[in-house]
Amino acid sequence: MASNSFGVIFKITTWGESHGKAMGVVIDGCPAGLSLEESDIYTELAWRAPGRNTLMSPRIEPDKPEILSGVFDGKTTGAPISILIPNSDADSSKYEPIKNLLRPGHANYTYLEKYGIFDYRGNGRASARETVCRVAAGAIAKKLLSHYGIKLVAYLKQIGTVSAKVLHKDITQLIQTTKQSAVFCPEAKASETMIKLIEETKERGDSLGGIVEFVADGLPTGLGDPIYEKLEANLAHAMLSLPATKGFEIGSGFQSVLMNGSEHNDIFIKEEGIIRTKTNHAGGTLGGISNGMPLVGRVAFKPTSSISHEQETLTLEKEAAAIKLPSGSRNDPCVAIRAVPVVEAMAALVLADSLLLNKCSRL
Amino acid sequence: MASNSFGVIFKITTWGESHGKAMGVVIDGCPAGLSLEESDIYTELAWRAPGRNTLMSPRIEPDKPEILSGVFDGKTTGAPISILIPNSDADSSKYEPIKNLLRPGHANYTYLEKYGIFDYRGNGRASARETVCRVAAGAIAKKLLSHYGIKLVAYLKQIGTVSAKVLHKDITQLIQTTKQSAVFCPEAKASETMIKLIEETKERGDSLGGIVEFVADGLPTGLGDPIYEKLEANLAHAMLSLPATKGFEIGSGFQSVLMNGSEHNDIFIKEEGIIRTKTNHAGGTLGGISNGMPLVGRVAFKPTSSISHEQETLTLEKEAAAIKLPSGSRNDPCVAIRAVPVVEAMAALVLADSLLLNKCSRL
Amino acid sequence: MASNSFGVIFKITTWGESHGKAMGVVIDGCPAGLSLEESDIYTELAWRAPGRNTLMSPRIEPDKPEILSGVFDGKTTGAPISILIPNSDADSSKYEPIKNLLRPGHANYTYLEKYGIFDYRGNGRASARETVCRVAAGAIAKKLLSHYGIKLVAYLKQIGTVSAKVLHKDITQLIQTTKQSAVFCPEAKASETMIKLIEETKERGDSLGGIVEFVADGLPTGLGDPIYEKLEANLAHAMLSLPATKGFEIGSGFQSVLMNGSEHNDIFIKEEGIIRTKTNHAGGTLGGISNGMPLVGRVAFKPTSSISHEQETLTLEKEAAAIKLPSGSRNDPCVAIRAVPVVEAMAALVLADSLLLNKCSRL
Amino acid sequence: MASNSFGVIFKITTWGESHGKAMGVVIDGCPAGLSLEESDIYTELAWRAPGRNTLMSPRIEPDKPEILSGVFDGKTTGAPISILIPNSDADSSKYEPIKNLLRPGHANYTYLEKYGIFDYRGNGRASARETVCRVAAGAIAKKLLSHYGIKLVAYLKQIGTVSAKVLHKDITQLIQTTKQSAVFCPEAKASETMIKLIEETKERGDSLGGIVEFVADGLPTGLGDPIYEKLEANLAHAMLSLPATKGFEIGSGFQSVLMNGSEHNDIFIKEEGIIRTKTNHAGGTLGGISNGMPLVGRVAFKPTSSISHEQETLTLEKEAAAIKLPSGSRNDPCVAIRAVPVVEAMAALVLADSLLLNKCSRL
Repeated sequence: MASNSFGVIFKITTWGESHGKAMGVVIDGCPAGLSLEESDIYTELAWRAPGRNTLMSPRIEPDKPEILSGVFDGKTTGAPISILIPNSDADSSKYEPIKNLLRPGHANYTYLEKYGIFDYRGNGRASARETVCRVAAGAIAKKLLSHYGIKLVAYLKQIGTVSAKVLHKDITQLIQTTKQSAVFCPEAKASETMIKLIEETKERGDSLGGIVEFVADGLPTGLGDPIYEKLEANLAHAMLSLPATKGFEIGSGFQSVLMNGSEHNDIFIKEEGIIRTKTNHAGGTLGGISNGMPLVGRVAFKPTSSISHEQETLTLEKEAAAIKLPSGSRNDPCVAIRAVPVVEAMAALVLADSLLLNKCSRL
Repeated sequence: MASNSFGVIFKITTWGESHGKAMGVVIDGCPAGLSLEESDIYTELAWRAPGRNTLMSPRIEPDKPEILSGVFDGKTTGAPISILIPNSDADSSKYEPIKNLLRPGHANYTYLEKYGIFDYRGNGRASARETVCRVAAGAIAKKLLSHYGIKLVAYLKQIGTVSAKVLHKDITQLIQTTKQSAVFCPEAKASETMIKLIEETKERGDSLGGIVEFVADGLPTGLGDPIYEKLEANLAHAMLSLPATKGFEIGSGFQSVLMNGSEHNDIFIKEEGIIRTKTNHAGGTLGGISNGMPLVGRVAFKPTSSISHEQETLTLEKEAAAIKLPSGSRNDPCVAIRAVPVVEAMAALVLADSLLLNKCSRL
Repeated sequence: MASNSFGVIFKITTWGESHGKAMGVVIDGCPAGLSLEESDIYTELAWRAPGRNTLMSPRIEPDKPEILSGVFDGKTTGAPISILIPNSDADSSKYEPIKNLLRPGHANYTYLEKYGIFDYRGNGRASARETVCRVAAGAIAKKLLSHYGIKLVAYLKQIGTVSAKVLHKDITQLIQTTKQSAVFCPEAKASETMIKLIEETKERGDSLGGIVEFVADGLPTGLGDPIYEKLEANLAHAMLSLPATKGFEIGSGFQSVLMNGSEHNDIFIKEEGIIRTKTNHAGGTLGGISNGMPLVGRVAFKPTSSISHEQETLTLEKEAAAIKLPSGSRNDPCVAIRAVPVVEAMAALVLADSLLLNKCSRL
Repeated sequence: MASNSFGVIFKITTWGESHGKAMGVVIDGCPAGLSLEESDIYTELAWRAPGRNTLMSPRIEPDKPEILSGVFDGKTTGAPISILIPNSDADSSKYEPIKNLLRPGHANYTYLEKYGIFDYRGNGRASARETVCRVAAGAIAKKLLSHYGIKLVAYLKQIGTVSAKVLHKDITQLIQTTKQSAVFCPEAKASETMIKLIEETKERGDSLGGIVEFVADGLPTGLGDPIYEKLEANLAHAMLSLPATKGFEIGSGFQSVLMNGSEHNDIFIKEEGIIRTKTNHAGGTLGGISNGMPLVGRVAFKPTSSISHEQETLTLEKEAAAIKLPSGSRNDPCVAIRAVPVVEAMAALVLADSLLLNKCSRL
């Protein structure tokens, strides 16, 4: 089943396995006339790249994207944009010893059950490496959003029990402080505590979950298409398609359950001639359509499945076994960190699509 | 933009406004040969119908579905199944006095911004009345799932701070105890406490949020299509397309953030010759594909936006005003209750589609 | 498989069997703000209705469409528009005697092979009755096109060997002369000859094939999306989805095979400041995108499969048999006549969709 | 608008411009377990490659396809298959002198009107070079069809007035004789006459149109999904998405217009226990569903637009001008010849998709 595409008008199709020749994405439906260079994409990929610091997987790849089509004289032409990102640093031999073992928390079991075959090298198609394609495509979506005055940022909101306090007043500043943090956490103090927690957990050979929050500002009203293409529905879809995600919420999210309606309802007010709401429990949408307030959502990531501990498991032949990652294995103690730019990219893709779709809502 | 359809192979298209002539749904892609009668749908609609007790909106409609096509000699024919549900009890006059006011927590503002026109009668297309179509379609999906040995149930997990303890061992019993509760809560004690809380909140003219949980058992391995049609991605999409939803989680969800990998990873074991996992933090999927364990997810509903309290707001012309619902208005103090069968229906639709799609995954 | 929808942004979903309770169509994606009344649709259906004269099937139905949703205060709201057309005149008993026979040229054999079940009454879903839904939806598409200054007409170009000569200079007049003809043929003389041919053929108990041509004028440049949503590709798809169609061509069509490039190439000229072409062999598109010239296409219809002659055939159990239609059977000696408004409707649907899609092609 | 994909389950997405770095296609939805090597694709591309003889464009490229993903241990994995074909022989300088001229019969005018920008080098995205991607994808589709016992061939049926007589009895032989002809025409004598006609026309600096016919044998009954995914509708869509096509017909096609129903109806007979029809005017489908008879269709190609004659035209600024192709330009005097493997590929893609979709039609 064709299931590697996302979006309706601004649509991406990704391909590639972790240890295959390359990763790639085709962006179809980007309007003509947008300035685009490889460096626009490179910048975003660099943000996602591991090796920013010791907290993340040491796999270091240049991730130099190549634009193979869809751009002429520095502008998009309306033709599909094909981006290829070589896989330069793939050592598959480490996966040989564990290829016949079911990996706890991993997808090799279900892929084998579904397809009867699994490219186990680096987890093949099930690897988080696939998200590099989303970030590449998201870079273009972000340029499109920027053209329409929309700003977007994602950041690490929580790791384990350490949560950051973040205000959404000034998104430009939020972008800056986020980039300054080794873990993409805009609150300096929380950032430090998080780093300590990660280092300590890593030392124990264990891993941590986390929450990534995203905020978009400058959204026009009207984005999102009821009933089944509501803005939050497409965001939820986008986020839960990411590896290791366990939840999504918008605005007040699961906390809204503990509130009364009189408290939760955002009161409409006029600010500088514009309709806004006093609070933003809704998180930027009403009835699935953007209301002009900041769009705010969160994504829950489980603790990384790959840990250094030895774990019980089964072989493919259903026999009891123990599994331990090879010593040189590259894994993030907390996938939520590297997921930050990916969450941002997915939000950008959803918004770009809804922006274009909204052109068709009225005569 | 065409946005009133959901699904790829087993696809629904819904239509209708709250106070229009009727609501309807076209189910396209149901395999031929499935036994189907109007009573199959009626049974499910009755479960959703208001007026089960005083806790829910007193709007009482027979909701007698009519199958207009797609069934011959008591079986589906492969042709689209059109179901029409008349709107018999619609008094739109009550909405006249507030039609020029922005309703806090409601969609009339955003619909007007997007479309320039809004059928304000009963909130038109933005009404939760639309979900009757999902339940009708879900009834067929559930029959299809049942044919393949899959059982599914949703129930009220939490209201405000009152949470029920629910085990997933015996889904047949879970279905029974859920149906016995006036609030679809399978734990008798929690059910009682919830009812008290609702009554008390209703008396105060306020409203409550809640969490609906769903469980599916008997799923084969292999459902869900990486990357962008992962089972949990489609479930998240389905759930966040529902009115008043603020969040979705699968398995351990947001709680996973507080766990370590060594704790979260579900260990593979062999039980009666079958591969299962010791725990089910994953919630039934790995890499977006069902792993044979129970599928478990949760949906967060905000407190009902329609409350009896007077609230500040603006007119459509941006002037300050106050809004108070007309005395006879029909509203649920907690939409999560009536949402229970709807969540179940949406889960059924996602599973039915993934079942059919999975037929194409291998030679 | 969900296969009863057509279009991307302006999308229709049709349902209903010939002798079921009703036929229906959901139009999703019509922009908000378009004036729409039931009479707009009724007018188009009346044009398609049988019984205009003795040449067509005597089945006479009022075909009174009911708009069930999507319109408020006389305007479309952006919500899906559901139209229901009752089946009032269905006598299924005539089909009983032949229900176990394979009908030459008909679909009952293939439906049974595919689905294992067939609603044989009036040919169920395979009946041309389904096209009433397309005409209803096309009525709305035509209103949308009209809003953008586009005029569209289809007419009978040929029956058997009788071909009409038609000029495309004045489309308004073409619409008039077409409506004046009992067989939708704008050339009076050919129209008469066609009528004689049909009557004579009908008397012999036989049937005729025909060609329907359509022309659209006032199209902006830019409609159609390379590569796989080219204007002519979507038109071809639309037309070949009609019952009894065997071919589609655009512009010079199959005749172009007999021409040299030097003859076929349309030379660009400037007329009143606008770029046009001297000839229009292309038929209004270049590279799948409208070039501002009239859009011209043709659809070939086979002779009606239902004839009064006795024909050899097989039973469902593969035994030799003879089949003869019951005396009172209602059939058109030439389906191409009634297909005229349907071809027009399908062209309108394709153009409406491409108009909306084109809003997204540039920044 | 995302418009570079084709298919529902077995879906292709193509990208690349004629003189860009490479052409490519992503095949998503190919079932896991199909044996696949680069040589499978190379073989098909070689068939399409120019330079088979002097009749075709002298552009000679190795067209060595590279499979970048989706295959592991020689088998498809269910993951998207990305194929890249480098553009090695692109000299864009020749297009410089004519870049400001509207090219008669070409797409540069409409692309500029639609997108405001055009990659004029080798006609960019509008070039027939894009079809190399279809052939690459078609190679995989053909392997899938072959797995299910389906054989498929396309051949040149007509050039100008020279038409070949072709029988469909023995498709294996038909494949052989087709490959032996320099112009893919299975009738030796017609092949010779065609070659002479082409040479003569080429000498005159002019071009010719042609008809490509395709035949598929071994099809099961049941392929094709009414109403809007009928087999012939999808074939028509596929074929009219090809450059230079002006028409499509199935079975008797436009000739059916000249027949009576008593003549056109294919009579059902039993042959070796199997239901077949005496004649095959239908061309292999009834009601849009395959009936087990050979699938037969035809595609009309206009004469090549690029001719050596000087032609009148306009500049982009609407001033009168003359255009003459640069002496070294590479063009086929008859595009229909090179289109033969492309038509075959498109038919294969449609059939592969319908095969997979049909798995979902019954319980």
